Amino acid sequence: MRIGVIGYSGDINEPPVKYLREICEDLGRKIALRNHVLITGGTDGIMDLVSKGAKENGGTVIGIVPGKENGNSYLSYELKTGIDSSMRSVLMMYNVDAVISVGGKAGTGLEIFAAYLMRIPIILLRGTGGWTDRISNVLIEGKYLDERKLVELKSAWTVDDAMNMLENKRA
Amino acid sequence: MRIGVIGYSGDINEPPVKYLREICEDLGRKIALRNHVLITGGTDGIMDLVSKGAKENGGTVIGIVPGKENGNSYLSYELKTGIDSSMRSVLMMYNVDAVISVGGKAGTGLEIFAAYLMRIPIILLRGTGGWTDRISNVLIEGKYLDERKLVELKSAWTVDDAMNMLENKRA
Amino acid sequence: MRIGVIGYSGDINEPPVKYLREICEDLGRKIALRNHVLITGGTDGIMDLVSKGAKENGGTVIGIVPGKENGNSYLSYELKTGIDSSMRSVLMMYNVDAVISVGGKAGTGLEIFAAYLMRIPIILLRGTGGWTDRISNVLIEGKYLDERKLVELKSAWTVDDAMNMLENKRA
Amino acid sequence: MRIGVIGYSGDINEPPVKYLREICEDLGRKIALRNHVLITGGTDGIMDLVSKGAKENGGTVIGIVPGKENGNSYLSYELKTGIDSSMRSVLMMYNVDAVISVGGKAGTGLEIFAAYLMRIPIILLRGTGGWTDRISNVLIEGKYLDERKLVELKSAWTVDDAMNMLENKRA
Repeated sequence: MRIGVIGYSGDINEPPVKYLREICEDLGRKIALRNHVLITGGTDGIMDLVSKGAKENGGTVIGIVPGKENGNSYLSYELKTGIDSSMRSVLMMYNVDAVISVGGKAGTGLEIFAAYLMRIPIILLRGTGGWTDRISNVLIEGKYLDERKLVELKSAWTVDDAMNMLENKRA
Repeated sequence: MRIGVIGYSGDINEPPVKYLREICEDLGRKIALRNHVLITGGTDGIMDLVSKGAKENGGTVIGIVPGKENGNSYLSYELKTGIDSSMRSVLMMYNVDAVISVGGKAGTGLEIFAAYLMRIPIILLRGTGGWTDRISNVLIEGKYLDERKLVELKSAWTVDDAMNMLENKRA
Repeated sequence: MRIGVIGYSGDINEPPVKYLREICEDLGRKIALRNHVLITGGTDGIMDLVSKGAKENGGTVIGIVPGKENGNSYLSYELKTGIDSSMRSVLMMYNVDAVISVGGKAGTGLEIFAAYLMRIPIILLRGTGGWTDRISNVLIEGKYLDERKLVELKSAWTVDDAMNMLENKRA
Repeated sequence: MRIGVIGYSGDINEPPVKYLREICEDLGRKIALRNHVLITGGTDGIMDLVSKGAKENGGTVIGIVPGKENGNSYLSYELKTGIDSSMRSVLMMYNVDAVISVGGKAGTGLEIFAAYLMRIPIILLRGTGGWTDRISNVLIEGKYLDERKLVELKSAWTVDDAMNMLENKRA
């Protein structure tokens, strides 16, 4: 599967990204070890940490970056899109089979909606803060972004739970 | 000002759009009468109703439509973007000075985030349901989408309140 | 009809744009007087001059600008696309019924191909130099860009000829 | 280097693509053997043949496809862009260090202009027909697309010549 990971951008040595280092590297590692391809927005913050975890464990990491920006140093392949960060987030969703969300500011919020609108299953890695936790308070029937019920958002409380949920999605 | 109106798409004769007919036509009328330009996604649902209100009162209405779709019948000018609905929503935000949100499914949710990320002031027309009301329950300090406080989301409970808030924004 | 005019960008007081001032203003004027809508890339060079001719004669002028750039001062409405100049040129072609080409550097060359690929009829205003004249030397059967014969490129030697050709297209 | 190959789309068993099979597979093979990454539009025609040559010789092949189309069967990684074929061609140019052109209809013509406008060096593989040969008849000083001289277009008459030219570009 091609697994998109979304979440906080920003300096990896500052909160809130700093506190998510371990969970992100573990997530990247497990994506790699289970032979999934990791797709991210390619830049800093949790995208950097998850990519490190995947790359150092033999995984394939694709970064879909806004504009002509340079991606982080753990990318197997980087795609410059020439478009702004929000449009790029929409484009990214054409290229994933599922999304895992970790914390996140408004850009992550937009990505959750973009994924839902394309019916991409979304796993919220709960307890990581930001829009990942916040969105769960306003879901319809606890799992949809609107009445159309296009696709479910599921809550996972550990990386292992998230991985299991993703793989069951496929079955 | 160029005022973007976002909200429910769908059949104007079916709920929930049906119940918002009066408020939408009134909103369009007031945008026109105060000499603002109305910008919408150009298609059906509340976009159709607000455009009707503006057009029938001498206003200018621009529809920024996805793909090669045909816009509704109240447009002064229609721009076909060739891109999908979500990317088009991002592009629309380059072209508005403020946004008013009326009800709305997940596409409206995405638009609220897209506006915020470009620091476009957002007026939530409360009581109209959907993401317009839902998002207000999870705002930071009751008015921001994240800790960066890029721009405020304000709640208006009547069309007149919304119009006043928008015009004060400018001052 | 919505008529796209493409051609040289650049300073209107410097060659080659400087020498095309009269023809461009005349073209804009005639587009306006015949009640067509003028569509351009919205910025400088011949886009500025044709827009001036149209606007000063009561015409409607739409500028579809790259990125967040500000358009020239003769636009009835400006659409900022957020995308780069070349992608914007492609998007522009979704919004025109025919194209008139005046001189032009490589950006104009790209626009001629973009129009052809969307089957938009193209009038080359011959004698204006640049790609408008250059492309005419390598057309297949003197009028097509490839063997598929998607749409014709026609040569006009005066503004009046160009206007007549466009209107016949419609018939 | 990331080498973009552009040219005829269409059925690989029909002319003109059919007659270019050998040269395309050889080109792909040499790109792979010299450890370059091959970037194409990801679909059929010469894109398919060059990708086959690269993939069967251990190369990395990236396909940047329009819309949600499925790429050909020789891609190491496929990126769906969600945008139309022409916009996609522009986006592709953000991701290549040089372009080799083989034959080609109008879409290839557009790509040559898009590459030039981003100052990507272009090698015309002469004798392959289409816009690759046609454009060479109208170059300024035999090597530029306009007076700005943004980047050179060079003619190569064999695959080996093309490869040598590309690698010298880098020096």
